[in-house]
Amino acid sequence: MSNRFWFIGGQDGPWRVTGNRSIVGEGLADAERLNIRNTDTPPALSVTAWMLQGFTSNLRYATTPEVTSLRAIQPPLGRPEATRAALIPLKKSAVWWDMPQDERRAIFEEISHHTEIGLAYLPAVARRLHHCRDIGEPFDFLTWFEFAPEHEAAFDALLAQLRATREWEFVEREAEVRLTRE
Amino acid sequence: MSNRFWFIGGQDGPWRVTGNRSIVGEGLADAERLNIRNTDTPPALSVTAWMLQGFTSNLRYATTPEVTSLRAIQPPLGRPEATRAALIPLKKSAVWWDMPQDERRAIFEEISHHTEIGLAYLPAVARRLHHCRDIGEPFDFLTWFEFAPEHEAAFDALLAQLRATREWEFVEREAEVRLTRE
Repeated sequence: MSNRFWFIGGQDGPWRVTGNRSIVGEGLADAERLNIRNTDTPPALSVTAWMLQGFTSNLRYATTPEVTSLRAIQPPLGRPEATRAALIPLKKSAVWWDMPQDERRAIFEEISHHTEIGLAYLPAVARRLHHCRDIGEPFDFLTWFEFAPEHEAAFDALLAQLRATREWEFVEREAEVRLTRE
Repeated sequence: MSNRFWFIGGQDGPWRVTGNRSIVGEGLADAERLNIRNTDTPPALSVTAWMLQGFTSNLRYATTPEVTSLRAIQPPLGRPEATRAALIPLKKSAVWWDMPQDERRAIFEEISHHTEIGLAYLPAVARRLHHCRDIGEPFDFLTWFEFAPEHEAAFDALLAQLRATREWEFVEREAEVRLTRE
């Protein structure tokens, strides 16, 4: 099974784009719909707006108790009731990446409570993280979230909480695409 | 500048292969010489034995004092006197990658003293780490070392020390190619 995922914005796909905005820096071009493909090689699909790729990988910051908590309550993607989604591509600064592991970890969790904040919104929000900094992509991460319509306000609150953290001071580009499955 | 490096075993290149053996698991096919290329896309070179690729990335385990110590004494690659080299591709087990960050860190340093052992061989041995687990390669890492002929015995000792650690119990494939620059 491939660990590579492709997000293709254009005129096709099961996800209809309901919102597209820039949070920090340059945004993404407008697209009507989104396709997602899980394959090692570039999918043969017409790319009329943009194509972003990333890979799933091992955990980079979570400790044993955090992993235990996450695995106990995180829901799977693809739940029938989770007809809303968000694709949030992020890029962090060179200063962030040049920091030693313990400094990044401290900002991520002890100072910004990233995992702790996320845990409060489980199991409403399902999530998958894709890495892409190391493969020449314009972003460092592609974050993908799925939730039911009645949890959209909670999801908005999750984003607002994370964006107010010290960790987010290192985010130099962030786009946000909202979607509905049809 | 690309962060992608290609190691091409065949009949050409500035590095002559003087040894090729398997440490754990399947080894690499025999090659006479090695070329290294630093480019995003596959180099147009005849591959008569094997081609491995990896990318440089941010540090994954080192803490602030460790990074300070490393940066103070680690030598650059390409020193004229460093005419010996080793390419050591490694693959760790699924158990390793499934562990939370703090467990991997503890085995890596507090138990196995990976960085501490390496520091004792600086500045004799220059090194660059390439990651490749996330891009569908047969190994997780390609480690590259350069040193002067008079430091080859010290380099052997470094390898022996690392291979005796708890961390190495998670290594399920390891090959070793020794080289001389001509």
